[in-house]
Amino acid sequence: MASNQFGQIFRITTWGESHGKAIGVVIDGCPAGLLISEEEINRELFYRRPGKSPYTSPRKEGDAAEIYSGVFEGKTTGTPISILIPNQGADSSPYEPVKNLLRPGHANFTYQEKYGHFDYRGGGRASARETAGRVAAGAIAKKLLMQFGIELAAFVTQIGPIKASEPEHTEIDSLREETLKSPIFCPDKNAESQMMAAIEQAKKEGDSLGGIIELRAEGLYPGLGDPIYEKLDANLAKAMLSIPACKGIEIGSGFAAAQMHGSEHNDSFERNIERHVITSTNHAGGILGGISTGMPLVVRCGFKPTSSILKSQETLDFEGHKQEYKLPEGSKHDPCVAIRGVPVVEAMGALVLVDAVLMNRSATVFAQEKTLF
Amino acid sequence: MASNQFGQIFRITTWGESHGKAIGVVIDGCPAGLLISEEEINRELFYRRPGKSPYTSPRKEGDAAEIYSGVFEGKTTGTPISILIPNQGADSSPYEPVKNLLRPGHANFTYQEKYGHFDYRGGGRASARETAGRVAAGAIAKKLLMQFGIELAAFVTQIGPIKASEPEHTEIDSLREETLKSPIFCPDKNAESQMMAAIEQAKKEGDSLGGIIELRAEGLYPGLGDPIYEKLDANLAKAMLSIPACKGIEIGSGFAAAQMHGSEHNDSFERNIERHVITSTNHAGGILGGISTGMPLVVRCGFKPTSSILKSQETLDFEGHKQEYKLPEGSKHDPCVAIRGVPVVEAMGALVLVDAVLMNRSATVFAQEKTLF
Amino acid sequence: MASNQFGQIFRITTWGESHGKAIGVVIDGCPAGLLISEEEINRELFYRRPGKSPYTSPRKEGDAAEIYSGVFEGKTTGTPISILIPNQGADSSPYEPVKNLLRPGHANFTYQEKYGHFDYRGGGRASARETAGRVAAGAIAKKLLMQFGIELAAFVTQIGPIKASEPEHTEIDSLREETLKSPIFCPDKNAESQMMAAIEQAKKEGDSLGGIIELRAEGLYPGLGDPIYEKLDANLAKAMLSIPACKGIEIGSGFAAAQMHGSEHNDSFERNIERHVITSTNHAGGILGGISTGMPLVVRCGFKPTSSILKSQETLDFEGHKQEYKLPEGSKHDPCVAIRGVPVVEAMGALVLVDAVLMNRSATVFAQEKTLF
Amino acid sequence: MASNQFGQIFRITTWGESHGKAIGVVIDGCPAGLLISEEEINRELFYRRPGKSPYTSPRKEGDAAEIYSGVFEGKTTGTPISILIPNQGADSSPYEPVKNLLRPGHANFTYQEKYGHFDYRGGGRASARETAGRVAAGAIAKKLLMQFGIELAAFVTQIGPIKASEPEHTEIDSLREETLKSPIFCPDKNAESQMMAAIEQAKKEGDSLGGIIELRAEGLYPGLGDPIYEKLDANLAKAMLSIPACKGIEIGSGFAAAQMHGSEHNDSFERNIERHVITSTNHAGGILGGISTGMPLVVRCGFKPTSSILKSQETLDFEGHKQEYKLPEGSKHDPCVAIRGVPVVEAMGALVLVDAVLMNRSATVFAQEKTLF
Repeated sequence: MASNQFGQIFRITTWGESHGKAIGVVIDGCPAGLLISEEEINRELFYRRPGKSPYTSPRKEGDAAEIYSGVFEGKTTGTPISILIPNQGADSSPYEPVKNLLRPGHANFTYQEKYGHFDYRGGGRASARETAGRVAAGAIAKKLLMQFGIELAAFVTQIGPIKASEPEHTEIDSLREETLKSPIFCPDKNAESQMMAAIEQAKKEGDSLGGIIELRAEGLYPGLGDPIYEKLDANLAKAMLSIPACKGIEIGSGFAAAQMHGSEHNDSFERNIERHVITSTNHAGGILGGISTGMPLVVRCGFKPTSSILKSQETLDFEGHKQEYKLPEGSKHDPCVAIRGVPVVEAMGALVLVDAVLMNRSATVFAQEKTLF
Repeated sequence: MASNQFGQIFRITTWGESHGKAIGVVIDGCPAGLLISEEEINRELFYRRPGKSPYTSPRKEGDAAEIYSGVFEGKTTGTPISILIPNQGADSSPYEPVKNLLRPGHANFTYQEKYGHFDYRGGGRASARETAGRVAAGAIAKKLLMQFGIELAAFVTQIGPIKASEPEHTEIDSLREETLKSPIFCPDKNAESQMMAAIEQAKKEGDSLGGIIELRAEGLYPGLGDPIYEKLDANLAKAMLSIPACKGIEIGSGFAAAQMHGSEHNDSFERNIERHVITSTNHAGGILGGISTGMPLVVRCGFKPTSSILKSQETLDFEGHKQEYKLPEGSKHDPCVAIRGVPVVEAMGALVLVDAVLMNRSATVFAQEKTLF
Repeated sequence: MASNQFGQIFRITTWGESHGKAIGVVIDGCPAGLLISEEEINRELFYRRPGKSPYTSPRKEGDAAEIYSGVFEGKTTGTPISILIPNQGADSSPYEPVKNLLRPGHANFTYQEKYGHFDYRGGGRASARETAGRVAAGAIAKKLLMQFGIELAAFVTQIGPIKASEPEHTEIDSLREETLKSPIFCPDKNAESQMMAAIEQAKKEGDSLGGIIELRAEGLYPGLGDPIYEKLDANLAKAMLSIPACKGIEIGSGFAAAQMHGSEHNDSFERNIERHVITSTNHAGGILGGISTGMPLVVRCGFKPTSSILKSQETLDFEGHKQEYKLPEGSKHDPCVAIRGVPVVEAMGALVLVDAVLMNRSATVFAQEKTLF
Repeated sequence: MASNQFGQIFRITTWGESHGKAIGVVIDGCPAGLLISEEEINRELFYRRPGKSPYTSPRKEGDAAEIYSGVFEGKTTGTPISILIPNQGADSSPYEPVKNLLRPGHANFTYQEKYGHFDYRGGGRASARETAGRVAAGAIAKKLLMQFGIELAAFVTQIGPIKASEPEHTEIDSLREETLKSPIFCPDKNAESQMMAAIEQAKKEGDSLGGIIELRAEGLYPGLGDPIYEKLDANLAKAMLSIPACKGIEIGSGFAAAQMHGSEHNDSFERNIERHVITSTNHAGGILGGISTGMPLVVRCGFKPTSSILKSQETLDFEGHKQEYKLPEGSKHDPCVAIRGVPVVEAMGALVLVDAVLMNRSATVFAQEKTLF
């Protein structure tokens, strides 16, 4: 089953294992004529790099992406863009002694059951390292979206029990700027310091914490997304749940909507000063009937705590005997994987949106003057 | 964009508008040799029918599905199964006076913006009526899953602020049986009566309530689902967010995992009395790395309150003038659309699982003796 | 396997068996705003109808297509267009005595082997009747292509050993007009009479003849088709070989190119009077590198003789015993199935082109001023 | 549009330009547990390498494929197999002076029209070099097919006007062995020498020749291929027409069937000595109704003469001025591109068959005992 691909028109295929020669991504369907450089891609990769701060794992990935095809004289040509990211300093020896243990919270049990044979070094294919390819592709998707006036920002809104307050930034670019200044991608300074203390505490205990990431996007025009099964929110949900450790997603009011009345949840339509249709509130999170309304897109993703911890846990070996397992000495401990999820959530959001934008061009052949007034 | 399809191998295509001649579904990829009858399909359709209880809208849909192809001498032939469900008693006259109003919470604004032309009668294509096709296809998917020992049950776990307690039923078939006895699909009798009171109150006020639906599935064997982008949870997320009014999904502990430590969230591996690998807890909800573990699948879906209410709301007309909108007299008021979502959630879960089962057959060509011990 | 679908953006799904209640097609992805009526569809269906002339089988199919969804107030809405064509006068009793015989040239052996169970009445799903759905969808595709200035004409160029001469008509609409005047869709009057005599002779002998159909399309602009695997010619090849009885396809010079020198086969570029780039010859058949050049599209399809004949043939029954088989008395004998293939070839060509046109809109986001001079 | 992919379950994505850093292929969906080595892949690449004989272009491609992922401890893991083939000795300076000329028979006009920007060095993405990725993937597909008892052999059957006689080899492996001994892949020794003389003559004149390649496959069991639009022959047609320079395809009797009577073309069913169902003749080429019969698969592909010749041809430059074009000095002249097409045709055939085999596993869930007797 071809399951390493995402997107319909702007389609990415990622490949590679945590401890193989390299990982990579092939982007098929990027329109020709977009200016793009390796520097722009590596700038994005920098943000998801582990070891960037004490709050994520210290592994030095380097992550220098190299473009192998599809870009000529600085511009995309419409042919597949192949990007390679070499795996450097990947020492797989710590995994040797534990290769026959079922690791709690990990995929090695399910991979073994499904395939009967798998690369146990690091997380193998199930490693979060795979997401570097998504971020590289997302960098190009975001560049393309900017041509359509669409911008995104993902940020941390909760770590363990500590919740950030609603961001005050009304402009998405300043929200993104503030976020990127924070070592844990949290634009709320008060919450940030408490979150950092909580992460340090978890780290000290050899334990880990979960978190919630919010994605916002602005500049969407009405009409993006396709009913019935290719709804914008349905594709965002698939995108986010495909990220390792992501266990939930909600749009706009999300699960809180379950506790609301219709008269409270329904967003009233009105006109803004430029006489565009807007809604007075945005409980819908920018989507009605699976199609963008033009209001900001609001998505939240719940991440479980990092599975790899330094505390010992009961488990079995592949022969069925009881064993103890903990992250082997010498491998990396990332106390809160949600933080590194921020650039990945942003990248996946961009991939969904760029596909919706490109698909919309075929849906609207005869609807050029569709704007209401 | 072909967006009215769901599934890869067992693929459904639904068609039809709320007030057209009929709606329907074509199932392409159902294996040959499965016994199936119209009665089995209509039994499932009965449960999603509005007007079944005072707690859902009183429209008499009838919903008598007719099989037009793909079944011969009572068995599927491997060719497309075309099912038609005539639209009876669909009176579109109440929609005439409001056809130029943007309906808060509805898709008519976004459809108009995207397509420039749409069927405004009832919800048109965006109507929840479309989900009857999903339930019909789900009936066949569930029958097929039973051949593999897989069963599902969806039920109401929250309406407005009222939360049901964890179901006590250890067996999925008795859980399903209890659920279907309840007019609001809630197997917790205490919660049920409070929920019914809350719905009646909302109805009296011309308002509506949201809710949360849980889906469980048992009998899954390890290995279902495909990494990286066709993860079982990713496809479940897409499936559920494609249901009208669904605004969030979580797997296992879901968003609550954000507040847990790794040492608490990780499920320990052990062996059961039949010496199969199980986990002592199931925070993962039956999925690790996107692949089923063999533990019960646990999915929760958050539904917003019904958008159509009898209270007046501020809005605009298609010319941009301020107007008031409420559900027109003579059309139906469904005070809690989440309830009717129960059979749809179950159907979508079945569609995801049957596809995973069929896809898994190609992934495991050489992994026949893959079971660990 | 979902194998009853064709097209990516403008995607059709056909369903139904020869002797079931009805056959049908669902078109998913037709843009909103196209004017279309049942009359336009039925006009096209008329041409593929058997029994229209003594040269095809006399079965009265009627073929009155009914639109069930996706068209509102005479215009497409962007939602799926479901079309039903009832099966009238399908008497399956003649097939009862031969239901356990392997029919030479037919698919009943392979269906039995693959599925273990199939609808043996008429050709079941493998019947040429399935192509009525293609023609109905093709009618809409052709209407859509006309908005882009693209027109198609398919015609008979060979029946048995009799070859028609190159059509003299320089305009595609007059070529089509001449073709439709001919009961065997052959615009060459000389060849037509010989072909009709040959068909009558074959019919008298209870035998059948093969033939070759040519498809031309004009008005294509440069840029349609996608390298590398979605080449315009690759998709045309798949489309044509999916037609029952079609055993070969060639583009432009086709197989004859194997005998040519490069200096002879290469088409020189020049400018026409409107200063557009054209080629002096068109051995390429309008396609270079899988992308349209703007020159007329030229495709030829080879059809085998009808498999169902009135002559007795050696075969086996399902138990492996030797038997004789011939088309049962009372069923229809179509002495040259290629003729009915003409509207089907035209429809499939239209489906490929409309998809290429719609897909091209996403490829050319930044290539608006791409025309050379 | 994602158009650089082929296959549904066993899906390849190729990338790379003729004069970029490298070309490559990612195979997504290869089952786990297959033994595969770089040596096996490079052995196949050797056959398509230009410069292997004086009858193909002398460019030294080297073509040393390197596996970057998806293979662990010598076996596939079910994760994507990424293969890189560096581009060595690709001197693009000869293309500099002609970069603004429309090259007759080439894709540079259509790429410029479609994308507005392209890599003009060598053939860029449209270069036959892309087919190395297909051959690498085909090597794995063939290895996988061997586990199912399926073998393929492609060979030259016509060059210019010289036709080889039917191969005498009854066994496919000896046919393949004889073919690979021939520098022009022609197992008929008489024809071979005449073909070589014709190629030498064309080369001397700076001209080129076309040819016809035949593909045979044996060991297919009945049931491969999916009606209606994923017919085995339809997918073979798409596969072959996606090969550069291929202008036609036919199955079994192909275009010759147009001249046959049904009584002559229909293959009678009988039983062989092992009591399996066979047909006395094989005009169908191993396929009925799009599904394999179990008889040998027979496919023929027509290739046009190489477009790049040393003779001068009339053309235009990108500004529309008349110019002369011939293959620039210092670039390679391949007098008959059909020869290098042989391993590519074999690879594409293998890709189609392996996909059909894997897809068939989901279609036949309940048809295990489907064999007739």
